[in-house]
Amino acid sequence: MNLSIIIEKIEKFAPPELASEWDNSGWQVFLGNNSVNKIIFALTCTLDIVEQAIKNDCDLIISHHPLIFDKFNKISAENSALMPAIKAIQNNIQIYSAHTNLDSTQGGIADKLAKVLCLKNIKILEQISEEANLGRVGELEEEKDLNLFIKNLKEILKTDKIKLTNPSNKTKIKKIAVVPGCGASFIPKLKDIDAFITGDVKYHNALVAKDFVVIDAGHFETERIILPVLKELLSEFNVEVFVAEEKSPWEVL
Amino acid sequence: MNLSIIIEKIEKFAPPELASEWDNSGWQVFLGNNSVNKIIFALTCTLDIVEQAIKNDCDLIISHHPLIFDKFNKISAENSALMPAIKAIQNNIQIYSAHTNLDSTQGGIADKLAKVLCLKNIKILEQISEEANLGRVGELEEEKDLNLFIKNLKEILKTDKIKLTNPSNKTKIKKIAVVPGCGASFIPKLKDIDAFITGDVKYHNALVAKDFVVIDAGHFETERIILPVLKELLSEFNVEVFVAEEKSPWEVL
Amino acid sequence: MNLSIIIEKIEKFAPPELASEWDNSGWQVFLGNNSVNKIIFALTCTLDIVEQAIKNDCDLIISHHPLIFDKFNKISAENSALMPAIKAIQNNIQIYSAHTNLDSTQGGIADKLAKVLCLKNIKILEQISEEANLGRVGELEEEKDLNLFIKNLKEILKTDKIKLTNPSNKTKIKKIAVVPGCGASFIPKLKDIDAFITGDVKYHNALVAKDFVVIDAGHFETERIILPVLKELLSEFNVEVFVAEEKSPWEVL
Amino acid sequence: MNLSIIIEKIEKFAPPELASEWDNSGWQVFLGNNSVNKIIFALTCTLDIVEQAIKNDCDLIISHHPLIFDKFNKISAENSALMPAIKAIQNNIQIYSAHTNLDSTQGGIADKLAKVLCLKNIKILEQISEEANLGRVGELEEEKDLNLFIKNLKEILKTDKIKLTNPSNKTKIKKIAVVPGCGASFIPKLKDIDAFITGDVKYHNALVAKDFVVIDAGHFETERIILPVLKELLSEFNVEVFVAEEKSPWEVL
Amino acid sequence: MNLSIIIEKIEKFAPPELASEWDNSGWQVFLGNNSVNKIIFALTCTLDIVEQAIKNDCDLIISHHPLIFDKFNKISAENSALMPAIKAIQNNIQIYSAHTNLDSTQGGIADKLAKVLCLKNIKILEQISEEANLGRVGELEEEKDLNLFIKNLKEILKTDKIKLTNPSNKTKIKKIAVVPGCGASFIPKLKDIDAFITGDVKYHNALVAKDFVVIDAGHFETERIILPVLKELLSEFNVEVFVAEEKSPWEVL
Amino acid sequence: MNLSIIIEKIEKFAPPELASEWDNSGWQVFLGNNSVNKIIFALTCTLDIVEQAIKNDCDLIISHHPLIFDKFNKISAENSALMPAIKAIQNNIQIYSAHTNLDSTQGGIADKLAKVLCLKNIKILEQISEEANLGRVGELEEEKDLNLFIKNLKEILKTDKIKLTNPSNKTKIKKIAVVPGCGASFIPKLKDIDAFITGDVKYHNALVAKDFVVIDAGHFETERIILPVLKELLSEFNVEVFVAEEKSPWEVL
Repeated sequence: MNLSIIIEKIEKFAPPELASEWDNSGWQVFLGNNSVNKIIFALTCTLDIVEQAIKNDCDLIISHHPLIFDKFNKISAENSALMPAIKAIQNNIQIYSAHTNLDSTQGGIADKLAKVLCLKNIKILEQISEEANLGRVGELEEEKDLNLFIKNLKEILKTDKIKLTNPSNKTKIKKIAVVPGCGASFIPKLKDIDAFITGDVKYHNALVAKDFVVIDAGHFETERIILPVLKELLSEFNVEVFVAEEKSPWEVL
Repeated sequence: MNLSIIIEKIEKFAPPELASEWDNSGWQVFLGNNSVNKIIFALTCTLDIVEQAIKNDCDLIISHHPLIFDKFNKISAENSALMPAIKAIQNNIQIYSAHTNLDSTQGGIADKLAKVLCLKNIKILEQISEEANLGRVGELEEEKDLNLFIKNLKEILKTDKIKLTNPSNKTKIKKIAVVPGCGASFIPKLKDIDAFITGDVKYHNALVAKDFVVIDAGHFETERIILPVLKELLSEFNVEVFVAEEKSPWEVL
Repeated sequence: MNLSIIIEKIEKFAPPELASEWDNSGWQVFLGNNSVNKIIFALTCTLDIVEQAIKNDCDLIISHHPLIFDKFNKISAENSALMPAIKAIQNNIQIYSAHTNLDSTQGGIADKLAKVLCLKNIKILEQISEEANLGRVGELEEEKDLNLFIKNLKEILKTDKIKLTNPSNKTKIKKIAVVPGCGASFIPKLKDIDAFITGDVKYHNALVAKDFVVIDAGHFETERIILPVLKELLSEFNVEVFVAEEKSPWEVL
Repeated sequence: MNLSIIIEKIEKFAPPELASEWDNSGWQVFLGNNSVNKIIFALTCTLDIVEQAIKNDCDLIISHHPLIFDKFNKISAENSALMPAIKAIQNNIQIYSAHTNLDSTQGGIADKLAKVLCLKNIKILEQISEEANLGRVGELEEEKDLNLFIKNLKEILKTDKIKLTNPSNKTKIKKIAVVPGCGASFIPKLKDIDAFITGDVKYHNALVAKDFVVIDAGHFETERIILPVLKELLSEFNVEVFVAEEKSPWEVL
Repeated sequence: MNLSIIIEKIEKFAPPELASEWDNSGWQVFLGNNSVNKIIFALTCTLDIVEQAIKNDCDLIISHHPLIFDKFNKISAENSALMPAIKAIQNNIQIYSAHTNLDSTQGGIADKLAKVLCLKNIKILEQISEEANLGRVGELEEEKDLNLFIKNLKEILKTDKIKLTNPSNKTKIKKIAVVPGCGASFIPKLKDIDAFITGDVKYHNALVAKDFVVIDAGHFETERIILPVLKELLSEFNVEVFVAEEKSPWEVL
Repeated sequence: MNLSIIIEKIEKFAPPELASEWDNSGWQVFLGNNSVNKIIFALTCTLDIVEQAIKNDCDLIISHHPLIFDKFNKISAENSALMPAIKAIQNNIQIYSAHTNLDSTQGGIADKLAKVLCLKNIKILEQISEEANLGRVGELEEEKDLNLFIKNLKEILKTDKIKLTNPSNKTKIKKIAVVPGCGASFIPKLKDIDAFITGDVKYHNALVAKDFVVIDAGHFETERIILPVLKELLSEFNVEVFVAEEKSPWEVL
């Protein structure tokens, strides 16, 4: 299968120009191979994912998180961020990432999260920041009991535990903002909402919210919902595709 | 009671020169009052803490976290970080913070955390970074079952839930590093330990650890153990002191 | 009286977007109070002005010069620039400043200075710099004897002494540029004028002028002419207003 | 006369390494001529001073203020700061400046100013700033009436008018700090003095002083006292020397 | 002859706004003289060129390379880059340079080089960089033997030796890019050409080219072809003009 | 053969701490393999050198020039600087470079160049710059005819053509400075020498030298003399070593 057709399809869905300036989306490892036989999708391209790719005879890994963030000038096995890249090169596997462009795009992760929550009137988090298209805001069909909402959310995101703050002691919520992954930097600028769903919220971030519930549903849990979407996106092509076995690094005791 | 004697005592215990360069320890609100009648201790000086101070006739708040991090040039009620300061000024209450110096100092938060865990051979996390004296490393008297250790830890820190990663599937631990508060930036540089205890660990930080257990026991929970130490420190003086009623912003459902 | 109507009126007259980028116009101290009873106007909000406000039961100070220029992260009585702010907060007084926007605006300080000099064909000092709308240039009805002009100027600005340089030994002047306050940075770029009126001109600034008279009429004296304009501006409202008693810090012996 | 002997004498008196980092002391125009016949001293090397040098057959100008502050990459008659340099080169005249090193050195301008005021216990303005050796502090033999002191100061500095602020209404002064030229940046850091004498003090600088008299005696007037010192310094050599005719650019009407 | 007419003619041919941002084209030494009698053209205004100007009674030097690149704040004979300027000022000679604007302009150095090579379809090196109009690309009438081309090139540029790399072992060339002077920074971005002609190519630059011949024909040799063009340009005016005697600093043994 | 013994030997000879701050010496590609069977030495690790390594079953390339200068965050075959790295990784070959440390060290490239020229009293180019230990200065046994010296130099460096400038028309030389590779930045600071030997000298660099001969003997030619030294250095170990077939990219027609 021609590689460029696959990449074209993905980049039409998640246009690279939507990526944030600091981001490193796109090719992580490109070896000059212009065809592809089997693709594995993963949220994060760890060494374990490269091993799954090898075991499954994949020659392309498509991940959400870029393998590489910081620039480097030595390709060394002692830089653990590069180990998956070295192993991939040795096994002739190429790696491509769609990160903040996949978060932002229409039908991308933020949209998908809003949709699985059955929000209505879904809009981009406008006027908040340059990166506001990473998030969405919408409304539940009708006001819902907070505890019930959390219970449903755990089912939707397939997770056991969810952390929340509730500084204004809300019992009902209706208008909800979402930023999949790590959206704590949005908190100071949000207003006129009942709840904010994201992951990776730290103590000082949490204290900033005064008027709405902050729901930390997990970085991994709020993002992995996109992988089936990507798989579906490429289903029309004559190329084998599958989603990696991946789980959150965290357990809660 | 003469204010300068109080501050001198605290600064002898947690010398300001130990504070990190980016930190803003020391006076947050100083109104020129040189005496003190009643002191309230808190981890974080929120509006609620100022209200507790007012209700209890305190004229000095001593907090761990500085009220103010970012510099500003307008004193506005619309900057929510300044609301506690405005309320304090209106009620003639002064605010003092000991932050990274209190983390680092001998007998400070990091030491206290190591001690409540009954670690032996407690040492500063040397060679790791310029801020390594924010952390400690030590050993349990004898190797301990991981699950049992977590169970005890929850009792010690008075918390219900603790998150952990266990990438190398350890069942026993002995050598433990601790950084109270938010210590995720230490992860890439740690080695030769069985477990690392801190708070506020994000998804990508967690994935970096390969050979040891990362235990996220909570920013609030790993730090509040210092407040009784401060209260004790000033017990010799003729001034009323008490610890604020404070709880973590998070609940886990 | 509703505070927002007052501020709206002032900001319509001196739009905040006219302020220079380095400036800190707008709210200096805002305590969340949305009504106002009595207003005091001053060029510079010193501790003495706050005391006049207290004595006169004012709850709003409107000053030309911002209280605060440099950003800070400690509210301390030891920072003398913050003393008026602390005293104002303790007495529930809010402080608002209109600085370079008030200099620049149509009918603002520069225009007012040009008008009290009876200049004709008053124009903005165009093409000189990005901040040129801080100044005006115009012409006397007819050429005037320099000494006579200075004599009149002293009457208009109510001052005893005026400093001037006259490198080209002019005896008559007609075309005059004005920058109220501190306009020395304009000198190297001025041309085709007979005289330049401003304040705070230093020795090396003065030496740069070759072809025109530089008249240092005082920072305070060239700006205080605006206070009656502000008082008049708010006369339509049901709020007490008055101009503070203020004088130049300088005497000449 | 050998030029290097002259420069060596001056640099022994005012060592170049005392100059501030931002300063441009030393050769302003050096044409490779190693002998000197006649020297003219001036505070500021204007075009008029170069013309005096030409008329008097001088081949070396020694000025206090550097001709050139801002770096340039075009030698153009349209840059008025370079006109004196061009005229000097065309007339084979070299120009040397001793600026902040001459201010600071033992026996230099600051010392000379302290001495003409008959101060005792003259010390460097220590602990104030990195540039504190630009200033001196000392005491009058006995407390003196302020008005009388100003009257004497005008005689000593040969000036008609002197500006002062007196925020604490002192009538007597004894301990005095001096910074010749432009010393306003010292004001916020001065304490435990009765008066501060300098030049070029602007309105906002003046307002900062709370506890002492600020005397603006003129940039030119507080510095020109050094020229006879320089003349005397070179009197031992077989070279003609004289002080230029120079006056302040300001007149006060 | 009126100087401004001469400069206007040159700046119409090589508009200053075409110059690169880092460049220092235009007046190098301007003494305020507005007439001109005799002009000398040179590639580089060395001390030798100023001496030729003096010997030939020239009052204007027009050079390609600016005399001055780095900014300075001392005019000293010890800065060898300034020696030609000092000598020129002493002899009342003005110096003007047209550098990257002369490279880029239509009919300028790059165009002239393309023309002397008899290239067809000459185009600007578009899409390569912001400075691409410093170069041209075109085609020989028909494919030519490389060795023969080099032989002709030596005749055209009047040089004995030419260096080249030929990594892909081409024997015939047709499509050629040229950047007169120092164009090595273009190499990584060139493609779809047979050869690149420029000067001053360093070892690491040379290794970057993979698919085309790099011909280092000399910085001096690829630029001096413009001097007759400049002479011709001014032939219509009533002013004596001539080209300096200049040769490459290099000999090859 | 244990890899660390080899690297230790090289780093004892060319200590990494001698490398310039901007340099990227050390591991270019390290795959975690701790043994070595066969080593190839090269000046520059091009794709051709990696292919020689593959053909000769080498598993370690030791080059003088680092493969990678600019930092990157994508490992892409479209970045031609990374192609040799990708090919090396795919063939399990590691790459190590000793660059400016090998230039500077005692017995390194600069010393070797001085020695093959039979210079006496060889010293480091002191007082010139922070990087002066990249160069050496010494004297020929006796003054030598310049042409004869060049003839010998061509034999020593095995090159046909050498470029030189001779601005002061020297015919004899004795004191010689050398900087192997690219040493043009030293030219403005050199004095009291008869000749300077280096490579990659550009036109404007060449014009700066006034009093000495500048000999551009080639970047490649002045450096390749070190490869036999490296081979000899490792001869004591039980590992196969050989020098790659490498030639200058340039031919001179």
